[in-house]
Amino acid sequence: MSDDATAFVPGHITGFFSAHPDDDPAVAGSRGAGLTLSHGVTVTVEPAAESVVCLDGEVVEMPPVADVLQRLGVSATVRAESELPLGAGFGVSGAMALGTALAANSVFGCARSENELVTVAHEAEVRAGTGLGDVVAQARGGMPIRVEPGAPAYGRMDGIPARPRVEYVAFGGLSTAEILSGDTTTLTAAGEAALGELRTEPTLERFVAESRQFARDADLLTERVEAALEDVRDGGGDGSMAMLGETVFAVGTGLSDAGYDPESCRVHAAGATLQRE
Amino acid sequence: MSDDATAFVPGHITGFFSAHPDDDPAVAGSRGAGLTLSHGVTVTVEPAAESVVCLDGEVVEMPPVADVLQRLGVSATVRAESELPLGAGFGVSGAMALGTALAANSVFGCARSENELVTVAHEAEVRAGTGLGDVVAQARGGMPIRVEPGAPAYGRMDGIPARPRVEYVAFGGLSTAEILSGDTTTLTAAGEAALGELRTEPTLERFVAESRQFARDADLLTERVEAALEDVRDGGGDGSMAMLGETVFAVGTGLSDAGYDPESCRVHAAGATLQRE
Repeated sequence: MSDDATAFVPGHITGFFSAHPDDDPAVAGSRGAGLTLSHGVTVTVEPAAESVVCLDGEVVEMPPVADVLQRLGVSATVRAESELPLGAGFGVSGAMALGTALAANSVFGCARSENELVTVAHEAEVRAGTGLGDVVAQARGGMPIRVEPGAPAYGRMDGIPARPRVEYVAFGGLSTAEILSGDTTTLTAAGEAALGELRTEPTLERFVAESRQFARDADLLTERVEAALEDVRDGGGDGSMAMLGETVFAVGTGLSDAGYDPESCRVHAAGATLQRE
Repeated sequence: MSDDATAFVPGHITGFFSAHPDDDPAVAGSRGAGLTLSHGVTVTVEPAAESVVCLDGEVVEMPPVADVLQRLGVSATVRAESELPLGAGFGVSGAMALGTALAANSVFGCARSENELVTVAHEAEVRAGTGLGDVVAQARGGMPIRVEPGAPAYGRMDGIPARPRVEYVAFGGLSTAEILSGDTTTLTAAGEAALGELRTEPTLERFVAESRQFARDADLLTERVEAALEDVRDGGGDGSMAMLGETVFAVGTGLSDAGYDPESCRVHAAGATLQRE
């Protein structure tokens, strides 16, 4: 058992999705597609008598992280440093849950496989209502397509073979829990349609176009997001909205060309990884 | 369509495996476990009137690469630069097939998904008899466990959550095609036993121990490999033999501690990736 362990988990922007709830949190999940980001969350786990979770130096309540520690039967101090804002559609809570699972497994010698750790983190996210598809996407890296929902034993993944530069501007948060607990019929129909289209042509361009169509059809665009997307299109670029946050993303230099001052990163080649051992 | 595209594919050392042939090359494959390496193969594809394949500046016959190009319906110059020797158990032919699929898809706008490209490369390797499990492992990265054999539509993968330093010494080649076309009954029984043990405790240490046991049980150790492994054990380290090559690998500093002058790299966090677009 080493003193501590650190994992890096890429951020994840979902472009479109359909919700597939189930009583079994390993079966529950979402279908859809997104981008994992080279900007992400670094999670360090250190054994402690009582579990405490810190995000960027502040003690926070983070039910999925507490759940992961409990399921692994350990108590620890979890320190997360995030390059991405919480609650704005970047999968920060999923990243914290998955990073905690990987780092705790290493530091406490839990001897779980990667699929087992992904399952523990996925279930914790589903139970907390904070996400349905981020964890499996963040475990994979790249531009993940969630072909079938759920943890690795149930889900099925594919990917778009592209690794573009990504720009984003986060205006604010949207409550994932609130939207997922409401009526998701329209959203899910739009998400299923987008996935069908993307699978006929799994390219970056089609992903962005289907994401834009989904945001409109699912009626999730806010005024600020709609205006920014119009600016990006006027500037000759293309982008869409991060699900679920008041966040606009564009590929290449779409947002900076449109006069915005975005953060920029790339699609991340790898999934969540231990930093050192 | 851009002028050329480049992909990096990590090397892959199989520690143990069982062979699962099938008339359908997408169903055929191997179960087992291994290490993907930060040393690998960089493959550049450029459209050409007639297909030519070069490895480290020399024109080579490489049936899996020719097969990939043909299945994608394109002709191209393929230039591969390898940090690893061919035919010594590092999955160089699989890397060339997979790198060609990814780069050709990008340069010719084939609009295939990652799973489709992995399938094209896996089938090409199986048809050529040069490998059964390298391609799916190299597409995944990390320390892949091949739980079920075959291309993504049939196979199932897991992983060992570890990313150690890896050292290796390559004494020479063994013919994968020759061994795979012979009687694989003993080998496959040993591989299945090793996989069962690893899955009860999916750790780095167990992987190396099961790999050593497999090499002995499957009667694949050459004299030079056996002597080197003894030296590593005498030096306090642990290692095994790369399947299939006359190559010894050790984790950490096992080979240098034993007085060898090994190459050293790390387990690679990512699977095969496009380098730029």
